[in-house]
Amino acid sequence: MAPKKQPRPKAATPKGFRDYFGPEVTRRTEMLRRIADVYHLYGFDALETSAVETVEALGKFLPDVDRPNAGVFAWQEDADDKGDWLALRYDMTAPLARVAAQYRDTLPSPYRRFTMGPVWRNEKPGPGRFRQFYQCDADTVGAPSMAADAEICALTADVLEAVGIARGDYIVRVNNRKILNGVMQVAGLAGPDHDAARGIVLRAIDKLDRLGRDGVRDLLGAGRRDESGDFTSGAGLDDAQAALLLDFCEARRDDNAATLVRLRDLVADSAIGADGVEELSQIADALAALGYGPDRVVIDPSVVRGLGYYTGPVYEAELTFQIADEDGRPRQFGSVAGGGRYDDLVRRFTGQDVPATGVSIGVDRLLAALDARGRVDDAAAGPVIVTVMDRDRMSDYQAMAAELRRAGIRAEVYLGNPRNFGNQLKYADRRASPLAVIQGADERARGVVQVKDLALGARLAGEVTHEEWRAQPAQFELPRADLVAGIAKRLQ
Amino acid sequence: MAPKKQPRPKAATPKGFRDYFGPEVTRRTEMLRRIADVYHLYGFDALETSAVETVEALGKFLPDVDRPNAGVFAWQEDADDKGDWLALRYDMTAPLARVAAQYRDTLPSPYRRFTMGPVWRNEKPGPGRFRQFYQCDADTVGAPSMAADAEICALTADVLEAVGIARGDYIVRVNNRKILNGVMQVAGLAGPDHDAARGIVLRAIDKLDRLGRDGVRDLLGAGRRDESGDFTSGAGLDDAQAALLLDFCEARRDDNAATLVRLRDLVADSAIGADGVEELSQIADALAALGYGPDRVVIDPSVVRGLGYYTGPVYEAELTFQIADEDGRPRQFGSVAGGGRYDDLVRRFTGQDVPATGVSIGVDRLLAALDARGRVDDAAAGPVIVTVMDRDRMSDYQAMAAELRRAGIRAEVYLGNPRNFGNQLKYADRRASPLAVIQGADERARGVVQVKDLALGARLAGEVTHEEWRAQPAQFELPRADLVAGIAKRLQ
Repeated sequence: MAPKKQPRPKAATPKGFRDYFGPEVTRRTEMLRRIADVYHLYGFDALETSAVETVEALGKFLPDVDRPNAGVFAWQEDADDKGDWLALRYDMTAPLARVAAQYRDTLPSPYRRFTMGPVWRNEKPGPGRFRQFYQCDADTVGAPSMAADAEICALTADVLEAVGIARGDYIVRVNNRKILNGVMQVAGLAGPDHDAARGIVLRAIDKLDRLGRDGVRDLLGAGRRDESGDFTSGAGLDDAQAALLLDFCEARRDDNAATLVRLRDLVADSAIGADGVEELSQIADALAALGYGPDRVVIDPSVVRGLGYYTGPVYEAELTFQIADEDGRPRQFGSVAGGGRYDDLVRRFTGQDVPATGVSIGVDRLLAALDARGRVDDAAAGPVIVTVMDRDRMSDYQAMAAELRRAGIRAEVYLGNPRNFGNQLKYADRRASPLAVIQGADERARGVVQVKDLALGARLAGEVTHEEWRAQPAQFELPRADLVAGIAKRLQ
Repeated sequence: MAPKKQPRPKAATPKGFRDYFGPEVTRRTEMLRRIADVYHLYGFDALETSAVETVEALGKFLPDVDRPNAGVFAWQEDADDKGDWLALRYDMTAPLARVAAQYRDTLPSPYRRFTMGPVWRNEKPGPGRFRQFYQCDADTVGAPSMAADAEICALTADVLEAVGIARGDYIVRVNNRKILNGVMQVAGLAGPDHDAARGIVLRAIDKLDRLGRDGVRDLLGAGRRDESGDFTSGAGLDDAQAALLLDFCEARRDDNAATLVRLRDLVADSAIGADGVEELSQIADALAALGYGPDRVVIDPSVVRGLGYYTGPVYEAELTFQIADEDGRPRQFGSVAGGGRYDDLVRRFTGQDVPATGVSIGVDRLLAALDARGRVDDAAAGPVIVTVMDRDRMSDYQAMAAELRRAGIRAEVYLGNPRNFGNQLKYADRRASPLAVIQGADERARGVVQVKDLALGARLAGEVTHEEWRAQPAQFELPRADLVAGIAKRLQ
């Protein structure tokens, strides 16, 4: 059988995708579990839709992209131009809309669901920007009450604490799009003629954190040239209009009540603006009743969220501690979760407006935040390695590993070629193994095992000479009968 | 803004895909967690590759399909015929091969990894047959020792017990492909001229459970016509050849030692056959040393696994209890896990043979098995529902829910339109809520709440008249201050 000579395939992840190893996976799994526990405690039910949707059901637009079909991975079901067009989901909201429409006669109403899993974006990959990433959402569908929004804010605070962010290290900021719309109305930007300008205003305000007041003012006016020389067109507002919008962004006062007074003032006679302030006031009352003070959730008019589809309350959770950026300068860690109310969830499917509100947690960013805070648990602990001194006695070594596992101790026998003992210790090292068990002919005859404390050994190795190291008690002897008890004690 | 009139999109999952709700999701998550715990205990490290691979890296063949590109969802990266061809993974082994090759200089060797997640097949969907399903694999790469295979068998048994299958309700059966190859050699079926026949033999023997001895004999010979009249071509073996192969399948004896003697006899002078028997004997010794007797793992020559790529030991876990099939007839539940050794894992990429052995757990089948055994936990328990009698007092109701949650009790306020109280109880019913909390103006004035025991109410409703039901203590009163304690007690 002479195989045809073919070039070997390249062993590489596709551009913009990556693999996750060991602790990266287990830490994320643990974080998702904790988030799911909080969502569940709040009465949300799990939902898992398939990764694949019809393009028809998904809709042709990414929420923040204007070109049809841009940004999604899509293909035709059958290669020969037959069958449905299918696509990978780009977020969790579009599938929720489909589910809410498809099962509207049987789902409880309100429908409170949480979901977690990967989403895919066919976008240009960049550093730290991947084409597959996790989203972890909770949404309430069919609840017009502001109580639903207040609850989502409280839930978000609880989630952050559940995954290990200390109170004081985060803040959930809440605002209402209707107020911004009211301010736009007061500024003379209502109506379809100003659709484009309102979109630019929204995206400009969303960048307040990053660009500062001056940068946003430029974007509200003629436009802005960034450090690289690239020019972004502005909304074309005059100074008075821009000033009003900036006043809105900076309307936050020392307490929620004062902020609400200031906002009422800014929206003046705008009915929609007043409506928004009233909604925000209801949320503030509900949060106070729930016991979530401004140390956890606060009204902040500078939160607008860039996406076009929000129709009322919007909220964003931000980590407030400083980290060093790429250039070593301190900066706030920034947003790790966000969401809001969008009342046209299922209209595409049914023609009816169904109110919905929800939050999406940025799991990968949260993991990075915990790294930055040094809050990494010991999910990285490797197994105890039972080394192989005599390959004819594999069964004995496997029995040792089995005994350890029965006591709940992570353990394995070295399964590579045992000839070179150094390779076995090198393997134990790569596995971050805390202890290695050794039993040669001598130990066997004496009914003992040697245990090498690799973690201690590694620590000592940095500080002492080779001779001293050899004399250290990083290696000790146990009666074979005490193997499990002795190792359990050492691992405590 | 008169919107263009467009037909509404259909709210439907793509053909062959489905949604999973509530307990379906949480039960699977819990099962995956338990399996991961066992894998981890055995020293396996988690790996999560992306769902998307390049077609080049994935290879053009599904393991059990002969047509290139058949059975996978694939598309070109950019819609305008540029960029790489990408595809959704169809199993977890192909990505493992890619990872083992891509990171071969940095991964520990042996590399022991587990992975769990969905895979996708572009196949014709059928009843209970979906195009996205979970796989949950553990593999050891770079370990030629039979100890690795014995360990996988023990691991599989432990996993089944960890997810709730009682000892005695399952059996892990192990065999070795080399023995079958030896038997084929003895039968004169060695060499490239008999490639096709050997493939048919493999698939025929794999159907022994389903077709019985006679059906397999037909497939080994001229072919078989099934009840529907469809004809499947056979391997064209003569009676003596077929008899030898059937003898092999039925070589299992009362204990492993006797089975090994019988197998040695059947492979006669075949070197590869003898090699296979020796490997199986090593696995039997290792399992005995690990303490896994024939009540958990047994040598059974009828296990061959249909896939072509196995090169040595093969194993399969089967649930042995009876369930009723679609026609009400009792049958064994059947296979829930399987695997084996495949030594050409990374050859496509590097040209080198790297030995690997592993198991894949059929999570969805296991869940179905636990259903069939009635081993369903209470993941389905709904939240306590705090009803809304007075919509101006939402904050009070939310404070109740918050108190309950702080005590770890799953709870929520009804967030739909509260006008119709019947709808609130209907909602609680749909949510499988155990208790509903009610506080109207009267209860508030008296400083109490009413608690309706919906679970008890539902049980009573089936047995008693409406009048009796109203008199039942399925509803009781608690002082508002005792809300949490009283509900916690009732939920015990």
